[in-house]
Amino acid sequence: MGKVVATITTSVDGYVTGPDAGPGAGLGIGGERLHYWVFGGPWSYAEEPTGDPDPVDKAFLDDAMAGLGAVVCGRNTYDSAGAWGGHNPWDRPLFVVTRRPGEQPDADKGFTFVDGFTAAFDRAQEAAGNRDVCVMGGAETIRQALSAGIVDEFVVSVAPLLLGGGTRLFEGFGKDIELERTDVIASPWATHLRYRLVR
Amino acid sequence: MGKVVATITTSVDGYVTGPDAGPGAGLGIGGERLHYWVFGGPWSYAEEPTGDPDPVDKAFLDDAMAGLGAVVCGRNTYDSAGAWGGHNPWDRPLFVVTRRPGEQPDADKGFTFVDGFTAAFDRAQEAAGNRDVCVMGGAETIRQALSAGIVDEFVVSVAPLLLGGGTRLFEGFGKDIELERTDVIASPWATHLRYRLVR
Repeated sequence: MGKVVATITTSVDGYVTGPDAGPGAGLGIGGERLHYWVFGGPWSYAEEPTGDPDPVDKAFLDDAMAGLGAVVCGRNTYDSAGAWGGHNPWDRPLFVVTRRPGEQPDADKGFTFVDGFTAAFDRAQEAAGNRDVCVMGGAETIRQALSAGIVDEFVVSVAPLLLGGGTRLFEGFGKDIELERTDVIASPWATHLRYRLVR
Repeated sequence: MGKVVATITTSVDGYVTGPDAGPGAGLGIGGERLHYWVFGGPWSYAEEPTGDPDPVDKAFLDDAMAGLGAVVCGRNTYDSAGAWGGHNPWDRPLFVVTRRPGEQPDADKGFTFVDGFTAAFDRAQEAAGNRDVCVMGGAETIRQALSAGIVDEFVVSVAPLLLGGGTRLFEGFGKDIELERTDVIASPWATHLRYRLVR
């Protein structure tokens, strides 16, 4: 079996979106700055982002993709991303955790809705085989993964800003978990901190 | 004038103490792990910490000390630290923000209590002259410094653990502030992230 990697981007003050995020509002007020690293600089919701990442961030992304077998995300993330324009953007099976699994998107668009985190994770692990499963957020899904004790690596990409509000990654999370930092990758747009969970 | 540097240690989930911190309880349950980097490994409240920091952390500390002219801390930090055994541990003037300034410790122990953050900061800046002022916590004092718009650099030392509770650094902080990451220093015990505030 591959690794299970939980990975998400936060501000320095621990938010994964700005204020007022949600369907039609993307990452909330000012939240697009969290993901400047993905596109190598500023972009906005008004236009489709087109930039290329900084070589450092590109290497980080390529490395994550290299071992990837399947992806799990939460329904809010799927909605906030506008279903990535209607098609799964990863060339891998994507399982969306939802409480409304009956409401399925077109299967040929590459999304599978699954009822609850555990079932979605099991499907992803089966689909990934010997490759890695990536739990890519949002905040609630990352907390569910960490709480379930199934995460091998936690990777947090810290964007250089204080948002002062939004969706807090660790809201209501009550577990004490030892980590070992195994890598630091720093670009002008983000500092990617890789941690191994010590069991 | 020197720089104003706000610096503090947090867990990966953004806590500057574990649960139930306070006078007589130090950094709270499990919170001593936040500061393993200062002593190069495990220590506990039961014994006086004696270890030397990892060379990487030592260089980080030495660099901070090199330009230091005066220090500001909050009263809770002073109390939680047990007044550092009764004497100011820095060879620099230390101003303690308190709402009870009449209650002065012995002046010859190197502490000065000042009523409110702004007055304490002004005293520190005067004492520092051309050297740096360090605002060293706790959480509330860091938030006051960032809110006041007087911080040039924010340095966060991230200890490799999730605490799952405690004193949250950015609790109730509502300001959106652009940062530029200017340095990353990584030891096995902490990842020190240095940010310049963009004005």
